[in-house]
Amino acid sequence: MSDAGVYAKQGFGNQSGFGVRPALLLIDFVNGFNDPDLFGGGNIPDAIANTQRLLACARRTGIPVAFTRVVYAQDGADHGVFCLKAPRLALLTKAAHASQIVDELTPVSGEYVLNKTQPSAFFGTNLANWLIAKGADTVIAVGATTSGCVRASVVDCMSYNFKTIVVSDCVGDRALAPHEANLFDMQQKYADLMTCDQTIAKLEQITSKISAPQG
Amino acid sequence: MSDAGVYAKQGFGNQSGFGVRPALLLIDFVNGFNDPDLFGGGNIPDAIANTQRLLACARRTGIPVAFTRVVYAQDGADHGVFCLKAPRLALLTKAAHASQIVDELTPVSGEYVLNKTQPSAFFGTNLANWLIAKGADTVIAVGATTSGCVRASVVDCMSYNFKTIVVSDCVGDRALAPHEANLFDMQQKYADLMTCDQTIAKLEQITSKISAPQG
Amino acid sequence: MSDAGVYAKQGFGNQSGFGVRPALLLIDFVNGFNDPDLFGGGNIPDAIANTQRLLACARRTGIPVAFTRVVYAQDGADHGVFCLKAPRLALLTKAAHASQIVDELTPVSGEYVLNKTQPSAFFGTNLANWLIAKGADTVIAVGATTSGCVRASVVDCMSYNFKTIVVSDCVGDRALAPHEANLFDMQQKYADLMTCDQTIAKLEQITSKISAPQG
Amino acid sequence: MSDAGVYAKQGFGNQSGFGVRPALLLIDFVNGFNDPDLFGGGNIPDAIANTQRLLACARRTGIPVAFTRVVYAQDGADHGVFCLKAPRLALLTKAAHASQIVDELTPVSGEYVLNKTQPSAFFGTNLANWLIAKGADTVIAVGATTSGCVRASVVDCMSYNFKTIVVSDCVGDRALAPHEANLFDMQQKYADLMTCDQTIAKLEQITSKISAPQG
Repeated sequence: MSDAGVYAKQGFGNQSGFGVRPALLLIDFVNGFNDPDLFGGGNIPDAIANTQRLLACARRTGIPVAFTRVVYAQDGADHGVFCLKAPRLALLTKAAHASQIVDELTPVSGEYVLNKTQPSAFFGTNLANWLIAKGADTVIAVGATTSGCVRASVVDCMSYNFKTIVVSDCVGDRALAPHEANLFDMQQKYADLMTCDQTIAKLEQITSKISAPQG
Repeated sequence: MSDAGVYAKQGFGNQSGFGVRPALLLIDFVNGFNDPDLFGGGNIPDAIANTQRLLACARRTGIPVAFTRVVYAQDGADHGVFCLKAPRLALLTKAAHASQIVDELTPVSGEYVLNKTQPSAFFGTNLANWLIAKGADTVIAVGATTSGCVRASVVDCMSYNFKTIVVSDCVGDRALAPHEANLFDMQQKYADLMTCDQTIAKLEQITSKISAPQG
Repeated sequence: MSDAGVYAKQGFGNQSGFGVRPALLLIDFVNGFNDPDLFGGGNIPDAIANTQRLLACARRTGIPVAFTRVVYAQDGADHGVFCLKAPRLALLTKAAHASQIVDELTPVSGEYVLNKTQPSAFFGTNLANWLIAKGADTVIAVGATTSGCVRASVVDCMSYNFKTIVVSDCVGDRALAPHEANLFDMQQKYADLMTCDQTIAKLEQITSKISAPQG
Repeated sequence: MSDAGVYAKQGFGNQSGFGVRPALLLIDFVNGFNDPDLFGGGNIPDAIANTQRLLACARRTGIPVAFTRVVYAQDGADHGVFCLKAPRLALLTKAAHASQIVDELTPVSGEYVLNKTQPSAFFGTNLANWLIAKGADTVIAVGATTSGCVRASVVDCMSYNFKTIVVSDCVGDRALAPHEANLFDMQQKYADLMTCDQTIAKLEQITSKISAPQG
């Protein structure tokens, strides 16, 4: 039996659906993850290009938008195990070019930009409470890398019981096999996959019905 | 360039090492994950067989031991998005045979058995504070499935800054391609891989030097 | 200047308000916290009596309801610092009479009953994700003790950005000075205080407009 | 029976003790909490003066040191319920004078300075994992205010199973009744109280035996 067949037989791969109060989460779309000499490569440039259209739609439809960056202290005070596994993470300091959001996706006033030191956008951050403040029930996840910070964030997002959408052509990775393997895992167990076009169509369809974000 | 080559060039795949106060974490080795008609299959039986030797070593050397189970309320009060993606999780109720630890690895008095509803053994549980109470600096992770609850737990474990060891022949999955893909991801970014034999040798070497667990 | 004057001058004590999707949280209304020879006393019996009316209203209006219990392992596997400060907490095992919800407030099917080992109802539990699954934006907090598990839960609840209501005559404590001091702190900084009657009136007013709980 | 008598009868108020790997946590000792026209007043200046001696001892003995600041986004993107209760919190932006650590306690290189938006130093931060990376088993808590961010942090600290010491003359509050009431609650249930002199003596006694911090 194929792997997909095993998962189908065991009842995985159902849709969790799309709620009525979505938010857009852009994970680690920073220069360092778009630089093949640092942490980038593969299909990440395509993911950024597609995300430009999705971000424009999010702004047009008025849904809440959050960005993450990886930021470590210049003096190493907050280095931990992750920096032992991948020492060049230490280059991602607050002021480093590598740690700034890519120009194509520059945040605007009122969009939430949060710093993190671990793979998940939820770990050691105020993302969960920000989503609650916005009344979100659904999180649209894009970013880099599919097999790293996107995967970790999506597992936490689903665990918090936000309906989670991974936009398959707005996530990218330095290597394609891990990209594909992690899309498989996420689709089977944690999130629904949608294309950028499908997500834009959905946002335009539902946002007229969205209740206003709270406090 | 190969995928492994890309990761090597970007500085991934270093060792985070093995500390001096390890604990053993057995993730979801319950009947339902050892039953090919429910959530099991693949190399999970081998992982259980190997883990018997590792658990015996942990008990002999006196390191702290914790087990996780997936447990949902009979009346569905705690069902969330995970149960939408994989509806048969709802079968894993407290009293169900499927949700009991497998006979080969039955916990003994003083070992911590914790219930969870999400993939990570840390999410919505007292695992982090239990490890802190035990003074652990290193977590040895085994269980099922490699691409599911093991991966999610390992990412959180590393994020909490516990040095994390994945015992490569004591983790198993219903399908082998996700098993291999997730071992690759974890080894590159989050954890060190060791075999069961290597882990046993390490435990026997260090436990004479372990400081007594605190309070 | 009076203490209240200092707080007023510094801009504390504003109302955070009542949203549109409330949930009711009953904290540690178990036999042991209603027994003056164990952890009870003071005005806890009055709080339980008043909460009977509020719980009936919650059921009538169909809002989500969650209960917490304190539960420790019989073999002490999960004892930590809290049990060092208050060793009799160890008596609150799963099957102990002291750890059962009081008869006046027995949960019904579909209400969420969660076990905890720490003061806050959110620490090491799935309460945050349960509230997100229910789409809650407001938490109505009642229980025992005001200066202990209620205070700790309310601080976390506000930190998660749920609008938080403390029902002043549905929370109780073994001693009245800590009860009053903690109501002061919570009202100034974390939550709005309402009486049981006010809360019931509010629920009856808004629940016709509540959107259906999700997933 | 007195309040203290009730607590004694019910077995509260025991010592949880002082471990062997302490860390010092300085909570919100920023200009805004030392300014009676903003959030300061009361005995906060005394707490800062005493903490100078304790911080010097921490540096001399080489234990890990962390500071917290409250920092909100200039554009309000991360405002939530806490800012509804106390709107002047919004003044505490990254660059504001009010949000800088007081001159008497300026951090030095290698000390961890973390930003937070909620009362607890653990909520939405990497404090727990920083303490784990340092191998800490004990947290010495000082700062402002006793009834606010100190209390919230201490409850979480104990919940994570760090042995927690509140230095009674190194914590301060804008008003003395809440200061005293919260010292009572913390001493009874969550932490041991020590004076600055006692803490310094303890650090000097034990630090020769401290194992080197890891990672």
